Amino acid sequence: MSKRVIIIGGVAAGPKAACRLKRLQPDWEVTIVDQDSLISYGGCGIPYYVCGDVSDEAELRSTSFHMVRDEDFFADAKGVCVLTRTRALAIDRKNRQVTVENLDSGRQQQLGYDKLLLSTGARPFVLPIEGAELDGVFTIANLHKAIEIKKRIATGKVSRAVVIGGGAIGVEMAEAFTDLWGVETSLIEFMPQLLPRIVDWQFAAMLKTHLLEKDVAVYTSEGATEILGNDEGRVIGVKTPERTLEADLVIMAAGVRPRSELAADAGLAVAPWGGIVVNNRLQTTDPDIYASGDCIATTNLVTGKETYAPLGSLANREGRIAGDNMAGIPTTFNGVVGSFIMKAFDRCIAATGITYEAAVTEGFDADYALTAPSDRAHFFPGEAIAVFQLVFDKRSRRVLGLQGFGMMNDSISARIDTAAVMISKGATIEDFMLAEMAYAPPFSAAIDSINAAAYVADNICDGRLRKVGLDRFFVWMDDFTAEPDWVALDIRHPLESEPFVKKFGAEKWVAVPYAEVRNRLEEIPRDKTCIILCDAGTRSYEIQVFLAHKGIRNTLVLSGGFNVIRRLGVDWIPGKE
Amino acid sequence: MSKRVIIIGGVAAGPKAACRLKRLQPDWEVTIVDQDSLISYGGCGIPYYVCGDVSDEAELRSTSFHMVRDEDFFADAKGVCVLTRTRALAIDRKNRQVTVENLDSGRQQQLGYDKLLLSTGARPFVLPIEGAELDGVFTIANLHKAIEIKKRIATGKVSRAVVIGGGAIGVEMAEAFTDLWGVETSLIEFMPQLLPRIVDWQFAAMLKTHLLEKDVAVYTSEGATEILGNDEGRVIGVKTPERTLEADLVIMAAGVRPRSELAADAGLAVAPWGGIVVNNRLQTTDPDIYASGDCIATTNLVTGKETYAPLGSLANREGRIAGDNMAGIPTTFNGVVGSFIMKAFDRCIAATGITYEAAVTEGFDADYALTAPSDRAHFFPGEAIAVFQLVFDKRSRRVLGLQGFGMMNDSISARIDTAAVMISKGATIEDFMLAEMAYAPPFSAAIDSINAAAYVADNICDGRLRKVGLDRFFVWMDDFTAEPDWVALDIRHPLESEPFVKKFGAEKWVAVPYAEVRNRLEEIPRDKTCIILCDAGTRSYEIQVFLAHKGIRNTLVLSGGFNVIRRLGVDWIPGKE
Repeated sequence: MSKRVIIIGGVAAGPKAACRLKRLQPDWEVTIVDQDSLISYGGCGIPYYVCGDVSDEAELRSTSFHMVRDEDFFADAKGVCVLTRTRALAIDRKNRQVTVENLDSGRQQQLGYDKLLLSTGARPFVLPIEGAELDGVFTIANLHKAIEIKKRIATGKVSRAVVIGGGAIGVEMAEAFTDLWGVETSLIEFMPQLLPRIVDWQFAAMLKTHLLEKDVAVYTSEGATEILGNDEGRVIGVKTPERTLEADLVIMAAGVRPRSELAADAGLAVAPWGGIVVNNRLQTTDPDIYASGDCIATTNLVTGKETYAPLGSLANREGRIAGDNMAGIPTTFNGVVGSFIMKAFDRCIAATGITYEAAVTEGFDADYALTAPSDRAHFFPGEAIAVFQLVFDKRSRRVLGLQGFGMMNDSISARIDTAAVMISKGATIEDFMLAEMAYAPPFSAAIDSINAAAYVADNICDGRLRKVGLDRFFVWMDDFTAEPDWVALDIRHPLESEPFVKKFGAEKWVAVPYAEVRNRLEEIPRDKTCIILCDAGTRSYEIQVFLAHKGIRNTLVLSGGFNVIRRLGVDWIPGKE
Repeated sequence: MSKRVIIIGGVAAGPKAACRLKRLQPDWEVTIVDQDSLISYGGCGIPYYVCGDVSDEAELRSTSFHMVRDEDFFADAKGVCVLTRTRALAIDRKNRQVTVENLDSGRQQQLGYDKLLLSTGARPFVLPIEGAELDGVFTIANLHKAIEIKKRIATGKVSRAVVIGGGAIGVEMAEAFTDLWGVETSLIEFMPQLLPRIVDWQFAAMLKTHLLEKDVAVYTSEGATEILGNDEGRVIGVKTPERTLEADLVIMAAGVRPRSELAADAGLAVAPWGGIVVNNRLQTTDPDIYASGDCIATTNLVTGKETYAPLGSLANREGRIAGDNMAGIPTTFNGVVGSFIMKAFDRCIAATGITYEAAVTEGFDADYALTAPSDRAHFFPGEAIAVFQLVFDKRSRRVLGLQGFGMMNDSISARIDTAAVMISKGATIEDFMLAEMAYAPPFSAAIDSINAAAYVADNICDGRLRKVGLDRFFVWMDDFTAEPDWVALDIRHPLESEPFVKKFGAEKWVAVPYAEVRNRLEEIPRDKTCIILCDAGTRSYEIQVFLAHKGIRNTLVLSGGFNVIRRLGVDWIPGKE
């Protein structure tokens, strides 16, 4: 028996659900309602459209076989009716009707449904500050805004831009402006780090250092307090507590919020922060109404708690699942681990699961392994260092998260994706030690980064590796009196370590090369705590074990070593001041 | 209490076990015995050394921090004693002694042990054909051979090479000769395809097509019957049943066999094909003797059967586990899924789990999803088509394997690695549908290749997608009478489909573009079986579903579509004859 399905929202989850549904139930009537004129676009591609990598916005609305996904396409190719410029005003659950209004004609009508899908997406959060409504202040809300932004830049109207918000979209937009258009760009973030809650501070700091290298002015711990305009109502700058930044264009990228008013007004359960509550079949509290995409609340599979995960890829997966369930095929969606990846100029940064900071907050017996291995065989041309942090629970040995930072290629994504599927199934450190990564020198080291990080975690859990974090070490480097009994034991090559001894003095910095420690044991300070330093941390661990065997137990390995320190933009490296 | 550990074999598993052991038990005496003078090298790097990507063989024996791993390094840095040029002759299990002989002095001695590790590796299989011992015929047995091969090429002594064996090493060596040195290279493989048992025929065919494009002469189904030499005993050619190939250099890359004579002679259990039998703790049938690396038999986690997996990465992981167990830390190794990856000129080919062919042989209710998605967002610059094949068991919906072929970057490895860890845990199609791949346009499509392949598998399992394989289709293309009731229904753009209609005639080739099928239904042949063709197969599936809804059920979707066909080097594409 044919049924009528109304889908509210036509960007990612909605069209995906509609098409899946039509393939499962070809004789059902499926109607998509969207208030915009442009639908079914790849919103995540907007920064690449703005910067010119994608030349035409129509590419973001096209299939891989180059057909534009407009109303005609959905009608002709998919058998799906799309009503654009049509806003859903209210849901009458009792009579199973949606009131919609055509935004051009103003005409209202009732659309009856047997099943309803809410894929209303999210809206950008507009900071409640003065000047937010000025001409030249944009959110990345939809394709129209993107087209307008690009037009302004392309016509030479923008020489200075300020991006408010150091999340993924903010960073991507800052890159877009700087990279192709040479717009003088500042990025400001209210929190003390970029990508807050997504990565730990070391990864945010490596990202920040790279952005600075690429001439993006980055200001963290600095929120926008006011947006300044001229008499014509055009933006001219952004004020923070520290400074005033001139700007012809301001991007407000302060996160997004679920669009769930329609659901709330209809009496469906909505989380206090706005996410529509759904079960694992993506049903709302009305079993005939489903929801998917950026408007729903979902479950974090690591913490077991409610979370918000507004991502295009998830929206597509959820759309298919909603389509299945509406069509009568029981399919479940249990939640997310929160996989994230981003290009930032010549680097890639990615994460899955939760950060160390979040793990501590959530009450886990949390620890981390910070490693800096080669992204492929160290003898293979083009090899580079990648940095990974594996976060785990010491009590259960369960892996809680993985973060990666490296060159702009797919090698970080290989490790993050692998980790994501493992973490979603509750994998332990041992599972990570045994992960069978495909090996050939052009693709991986013989001991893959994932295995290596798990080995370090294993040594930490078993108490063999005692480490100190870069945060505490940096405090000491700023002020040696902070840890009066510390001394650095630098086991790198003398060419690397000697400038440090020279700069900081033999009292604070002792250099004995790795392979000579066994024969120069008398030079190791015994009355102090040795902070053992190398490039990646692996040799330091070996020396720590050896020294303990010789009775020298007051040692700590510096996590990550100089491979990480060098990426953090510190100012105390000799020759780099 | 200090113990004495002898490790026989100093390449991958042995040194790894030795170093791990010394970190766990620093006061134990650990001795590595190896008959070679060069130890602890990255054997998988040999092709890259030969081709010049790696300029010095010492790089293959160096750590990532540029120290050469020779006897002094192991003594000074690791506290491990290495006896090179020393062959283990016999194991006296009763008295726990190994008889060793110094190959230079001829001196024999007994080395006592508390724990013994056999990491004797593998030896290349030498084909039992005439001429195998000629000067200029090489196996890739060790670094000395590699040095000699490179010397001959670099000094201009090689203008024609023949590689016998189309496995991974054979293909890599063929690339090495062709790519940098311009040596006229032929590759011959006895089996009907390259990489037999590693990938299915379509993937081998795509690889072969690419090698041919790169001027490697590839002959499959053609074994070497004789190696020809001149009067001075130097190689001059290779004979096959079909032809004689001239050669100044011949590489015999016909696979490797475990070195297990020592184990067998000592009465340890050894599989009929030579693999040393070990339990999950890597103990042989003598609990004080362990084995790891290329000399052991292991378990295939998909088939549950004994298998052989001689890989450098596995050897390292196994070495660490053997070290753990010898040191008293219980650690298990349950087996392998057989992850494989290889660079071949500008392409990457990879696989994990078992092939469709193997799955059928093993008695699974096997089927496959052959897909050809974009390796990143289709609008992102540099995007390219990748080809994947997901192999699954229809009854249990368990995923048995994944193969990938695409551009030479890390995107295939991301999917293969993710699949490997899932397959090793018995993941189903549903797990693959939900795999949370990190998404941003530079790294992935919004619906990742892995998810997309699982969607196809899901549709096949549920009977919604009825497909035909490329093998059967190619038979029909060669001889239309093979399937007299078939007709091609080409739904691609008219610019793509019309040349086919013109060439093969409207009786055999009907063209109706995808988006027009709904309105041109009367043109669809109803008295024949329509083979629906598009680029990737996804649109074909949609049309199949739609036609079935309209009562036209005798249709089959062509797996993989033209994205795969174009990579297979067929000669019937209009304009390509």
